[in-house]
Formats: sequence, structure tokens, C-alpha cells
Amino acid sequence: MSHTIHEKQKLLARVRRLRGQVEAIERALEGEAGCEKVMHLIAAARGAMAGLMAEVVEDHVRSHLVDEARHPGALDKEAAEQLLDLVRAYLK
Amino acid sequence: MSHTIHEKQKLLARVRRLRGQVEAIERALEGEAGCEKVMHLIAAARGAMAGLMAEVVEDHVRSHLVDEARHPGALDKEAAEQLLDLVRAYLK
Amino acid sequence: MSHTIHEKQKLLARVRRLRGQVEAIERALEGEAGCEKVMHLIAAARGAMAGLMAEVVEDHVRSHLVDEARHPGALDKEAAEQLLDLVRAYLK
Amino acid sequence: MSHTIHEKQKLLARVRRLRGQVEAIERALEGEAGCEKVMHLIAAARGAMAGLMAEVVEDHVRSHLVDEARHPGALDKEAAEQLLDLVRAYLK
Repeated sequence: MSHTIHEKQKLLARVRRLRGQVEAIERALEGEAGCEKVMHLIAAARGAMAGLMAEVVEDHVRSHLVDEARHPGALDKEAAEQLLDLVRAYLK
Repeated sequence: MSHTIHEKQKLLARVRRLRGQVEAIERALEGEAGCEKVMHLIAAARGAMAGLMAEVVEDHVRSHLVDEARHPGALDKEAAEQLLDLVRAYLK
Repeated sequence: MSHTIHEKQKLLARVRRLRGQVEAIERALEGEAGCEKVMHLIAAARGAMAGLMAEVVEDHVRSHLVDEARHPGALDKEAAEQLLDLVRAYLK
Repeated sequence: MSHTIHEKQKLLARVRRLRGQVEAIERALEGEAGCEKVMHLIAAARGAMAGLMAEVVEDHVRSHLVDEARHPGALDKEAAEQLLDLVRAYLK
């Protein structure tokens, strides 16, 4: 994985936010929060995790399916975007 | 989309089976079948639809992300398979 | 399943619309439509199927978890709605 | 939410395991692990989160839809299990 620092930082920011959301679930359970509260927190964390996965997949499709240095312009950008639209729709 | 006939036939067979499953849901509702029966039929049809989508995505990744005629060997087969493993896991 | 006619008719209308969407996928494949078109049609049909399932589950939760004739008022309406919110969020 | 201690402990054990899995994603990103490794870790964490949600929903259905003290026996156990089967299938 040859992420630029920018992408790595973005993914790290996402995963840290996700960790914070998981810790909030933990605190809610420890504090005997109501079931509805806990379900909402889990649903939110699941959304964050889906967003993280979508970003990793996006990076994978854009950077790893074709070695751009050896095969410049070989990845069909439109076809890649169609795929990513679908991935995002399903990961929601 | 330049499917070989073989692939098109496979997809058509899948979509016809799916149509049969949707018609079975319709008949179950008309026949006042129990809720459990109807839920099972819908869950099965959803599985069939996920399988159909997975196959179309597979075809898209393998055939359309890179124009093999113009950029032979440009698609990283291993990276493509990793992506498809993930797609299949999520489409289930 | 003791649906009122109204509910049965609503579910039947949904399943018939879904059948029409599956037939559109079939026609698109037969007509050698592009991959993107086919993926969009499948995604739409999947959404319709999720909506159908959500409605059947809603009916199940509201009508079958508690026999209202024998246990009037026993179903906690607020807890049932919390559950259905979640089901709808996950079925999307 | 009136969980018995046993249930609360089970949920806490699950959420702590999930936190460990999210931390593993963080470490993998910091350590510049390969894309495939990161995708696998996220997929595993997503599975753990789905399992956590399924357990909370199960608790909600079994304990909160009907106030067992006021309406003993009102929850139709078979209908509740059918619902939970479905929830588990969709949360996977």
C-alpha cells in the first residue's frame, strides 16, 4: 500500500473517530444507558465503519488495480467511478 | 458491455430464476401464506439478487476497468480478486 | 397471517412493481444494455425488495408478536417503533 | 434497559473485543500495512459490530417489546424467534 501521507492521515482520522464511537458504546453500556441509546450509538458506529471501508476500497480501486507507473492511463476512470458508486451504495 | 454469449446466458439464467422467486412471493401473498413463509421467500429472493449483482460486478471489474486489448496485462489480477472477495462478502 | 385486505393489497402492489423491475433487468440483459445500466436496475430492484421486506417485518412486529385480542395493549408501542426504525435503517 | 448483569457483561465483553479490533485497524494503518490486510481487519470489525447489534436487538425484542411483569406470556415466542432469525440474517 503506497498511500500518500495525506490519504493515510485521512484514514487514521476516520479510524480514531470510529474508536471514539466504540468507546462511547462501551461507556453507555457501563452506565446502564437505555437500549434505544445503545442501538443508536451502534448504528452510528456502523455508519462510520462503512465510511472507512468505502474510503479504503476507493483507494484500492484508484491506486492498486492498475500500476499507473507501468501502465499509465490503463484504468478506465469512468468504469472505476461506476464501481465506486455501487460500492458506496452497498456499504451504506 | 461486451459479454461473451456464455456470460450473458449465465446472467439471464440467474435473472429468470430471480423472477421465478419474485413470482413465488406474489403467489404466497395471494394465497394468504403465513408471514414466516413470506419472509423466507423474500430473504431467498434477496440472496438471489445479491448473487446476480455480484456476478455483474465481477464481470465489470474483470472486463471493463481495463481495456485489455489496448492495455494488455494492466489489470493487477491479485488486487482485482481482493476487491471481488470484499464485494462478495458485502453483497451476501 | 391475518392481514387486512388493505395491507395485503399494498404488499401485492409492491411485489408486482418488484416483478416489473426484475423483468426490466431481464430485458436489459437480452438487449445487451451496458453494464452500468444493468447495475443501476439491479440496485433499484434491490431497494424495492428491501422496502417490501421492511413492510412485511413491520406487519409482523405490529400484528404477530402479541395477540392483541388476548393481550390488549401488551405490545410496547414505543419499543416496537424503535425496533422498526432500526430494521428500516438496516434494510436500506 | 433492565439487563441482568450477565447480559450486560456479555455485551461489554463484545464491545471491548470490538474496540481491540478497531485499535488493530489503527495500528495497521500507522504501520503502513497493505491494503488487503486493512480491508480484512475492517471486514472482521464490521462482523463483530453486527454481532453486537444483533445481541442488543435480541435483548430488546425479548425484554422490552412486552413488559413481562404486567403482561405475562403476551409475547409470542415463536413470532419473536422468526423476527430474530431475520434480524441475524440481515445483520451478517
